[in-house]
Amino acid sequence: MPFILTNDLNKHIGSEIRVRGWAHKIRKLGGMNFLMIRDRTGVAQAAIEGEVAEKIKGIGVESVISVRGKVVKEDRAPGGVEIKAADIEIISKVSDEIPLEINKKDLPANIETVLEYRPIALRHPKEQAIFKVQAEIAKSFSDFFKSEGFTQIFTPKLVSAGAEGGAGLFRVDYFEQKAFLGQSPQLYKQIMVGVFERVFEIGHVYRAEEHNTSRHLNEVVQMDIEMGFIKSQNEVMNMQEDFLKNLSQNLRQNCSKEFELHGASIPEIIKIPRLTLEEVQEIIEREYKKECHGLPDLDPEHEKMICEYMQKQGKGDYVFVTHFPSKKKPFYIMDDPTNAGKSLSFDLLFRGIEISSGGQRNHNYEVQVEKFKRMGYDPESFKDYISIFKYGMPPHGGWSIGLERITMKMLGLTNVREASLFPRDRHRLTP
Amino acid sequence: MPFILTNDLNKHIGSEIRVRGWAHKIRKLGGMNFLMIRDRTGVAQAAIEGEVAEKIKGIGVESVISVRGKVVKEDRAPGGVEIKAADIEIISKVSDEIPLEINKKDLPANIETVLEYRPIALRHPKEQAIFKVQAEIAKSFSDFFKSEGFTQIFTPKLVSAGAEGGAGLFRVDYFEQKAFLGQSPQLYKQIMVGVFERVFEIGHVYRAEEHNTSRHLNEVVQMDIEMGFIKSQNEVMNMQEDFLKNLSQNLRQNCSKEFELHGASIPEIIKIPRLTLEEVQEIIEREYKKECHGLPDLDPEHEKMICEYMQKQGKGDYVFVTHFPSKKKPFYIMDDPTNAGKSLSFDLLFRGIEISSGGQRNHNYEVQVEKFKRMGYDPESFKDYISIFKYGMPPHGGWSIGLERITMKMLGLTNVREASLFPRDRHRLTP
Repeated sequence: MPFILTNDLNKHIGSEIRVRGWAHKIRKLGGMNFLMIRDRTGVAQAAIEGEVAEKIKGIGVESVISVRGKVVKEDRAPGGVEIKAADIEIISKVSDEIPLEINKKDLPANIETVLEYRPIALRHPKEQAIFKVQAEIAKSFSDFFKSEGFTQIFTPKLVSAGAEGGAGLFRVDYFEQKAFLGQSPQLYKQIMVGVFERVFEIGHVYRAEEHNTSRHLNEVVQMDIEMGFIKSQNEVMNMQEDFLKNLSQNLRQNCSKEFELHGASIPEIIKIPRLTLEEVQEIIEREYKKECHGLPDLDPEHEKMICEYMQKQGKGDYVFVTHFPSKKKPFYIMDDPTNAGKSLSFDLLFRGIEISSGGQRNHNYEVQVEKFKRMGYDPESFKDYISIFKYGMPPHGGWSIGLERITMKMLGLTNVREASLFPRDRHRLTP
Repeated sequence: MPFILTNDLNKHIGSEIRVRGWAHKIRKLGGMNFLMIRDRTGVAQAAIEGEVAEKIKGIGVESVISVRGKVVKEDRAPGGVEIKAADIEIISKVSDEIPLEINKKDLPANIETVLEYRPIALRHPKEQAIFKVQAEIAKSFSDFFKSEGFTQIFTPKLVSAGAEGGAGLFRVDYFEQKAFLGQSPQLYKQIMVGVFERVFEIGHVYRAEEHNTSRHLNEVVQMDIEMGFIKSQNEVMNMQEDFLKNLSQNLRQNCSKEFELHGASIPEIIKIPRLTLEEVQEIIEREYKKECHGLPDLDPEHEKMICEYMQKQGKGDYVFVTHFPSKKKPFYIMDDPTNAGKSLSFDLLFRGIEISSGGQRNHNYEVQVEKFKRMGYDPESFKDYISIFKYGMPPHGGWSIGLERITMKMLGLTNVREASLFPRDRHRLTP
């Protein structure tokens, strides 16, 4: 008799089936034993009587078991069905009591405890839901960009210098040399536009930031795209908007249960507003009486304000902020030819936080050499990168989205660590 | 007028179209100028006369251009069609002559030169083909395992200790601590079997091996799976076999042009033979008169021999070799209960080289603690990992495939560096 998933039980009412998973909860109710069995699709209830009850005596929650029995309708059981257990097999017993309860509605512990017992905490249905949503985001990203003619690339994370200069890099002993962990695949994805026109990557990036806040991690997964033959950075933003619309559709189709569990809502698919930094600053000054005119960037408080304001206006959960000052942007960002001191750059804010930056890049050799010099870099130390501009590069641009940050904000989590299976921060290298 | 891809030209015969890309080759033939234009889908020929010819004077190959013109049948042109150019726009001129010819059938240079000029060398159609195939392999892997109920995971590459002990690790300065680069997501994927039953990951792994051969890299992309509730390691091998069958189908459907360009063949989809190490050694001794009986592993020469032998027998391009001695396998591999000294492990050989290893893992707490002690490890230093066995783990197993190695052998490349966009080896950290 083949095993079925607990999620499919209601397709088998009246039949004898087998399920397998973990003993999620064991309880007595009116002389009857109930065993909740958890598999990768959910939790099912088995009613246990007579001899079968003997088998589960003292097994302890989280034991791995299989249950054979008949599926019957039972309104009081989760999903409206119950298994009348005819037999139970213990596949793997626990040898200790679990260090934190994972069969209550919420994990009872604070984030530090949850992270300390991560391997077990992740079994909680709400924790599982986070990473099912994360997997769906990554899948949607890959599928969408493949369908748009992008080629997936894998670029090195061990590099000889940083994409954006030397600060904030982790150093690696690489035989006789010093290597660093890449902060971004930026230079590599631009090189690859010269090869495939349109590329995407999902990979780890590293930032040796001292910050230890609820929105910082030192190792994150980044979803990057870069595309050639653009007319303006608007095309790059259009591509992001189209992806996000597609993502909302996929989440609605495949993850509504997970969003419900977190009491979170999937963003509505509407046109994403595009405001310049100056326009955003005007709104913040006008609506929130916060002086920010002339600042080169938005601080976290400003990000929250503009998002709140746009939501109140019915403009949705996302906002593009464009045209940051050139001097605050990395060397590869193109200056706005029509707007002195401004750059062809944008950030995407989502529910109060920046989850993406992007823009149009320089593609002209002389302009890039000049820009390196102006910013105090030696063009020679970027010679592989800069060579592509000598040998024909189309106008291009791109962006990256942090996978943990978008997961966090999708589900309304308050700490980005909750959206990383095994987070790395200022002090945490384990588990 | 929208741009079309060169690959679609023959759908537009008789129409005026625009294409854009790189000036791949410019030549004069019988008083006529021909411009080959390369985009991400291939190369097309444009015939250029009169005023238009003036526009391309001195532009140099690899300039970025767009061409407008009428598509006509022309048997002598690649793909049987040609564009009668009405206009050409120069989008981005080269500012230097390219350092190696990328418009001949093969790259003329040796591997060192190809790697030195990697950003430009990758534009060669044969180089592009390698990474189109690689992207298809990665896509097939993700799609297949998603369809089999596996969840994609992202696990840390910055770790506090190695998955398989302390040797061969790159050290990282991590604030006040010492970190290492992960050699494998092994321990994490086992932890995640306790959460999702079935998981897969595509990610970088690092090996600080001194080896500098044509089959070693220090940073590779690994495709990993791990699955719970198995009855034996055969189930894990079945899953690999099913994936490889599916992969061959996808490659046949989507990459036949790329295989043709490399004169390579897509593996036939047949049953993969499964031989124990001892059986393989008997064959090698009998057929090749090479003494190898009792050795704990196959060396590269033996791998070639057994693959050659199986191919001659009409058994296909893949061979599973099983039941390696326990003492040669990592601590997480299960001992074969019916075969003292042997382990439930396997390697997959493909066209003369190992591209995958896997096996069944321990899932019992006491057995794993005992094994750590027997092998001289302190169980305490694996406490997060080992905790999962206390709290209920199903029998499980898995494997990993090296993305560069499978790409290399698929296309008949002789050096694994050719199958890495920007390879990292004993001496190479750039580009």
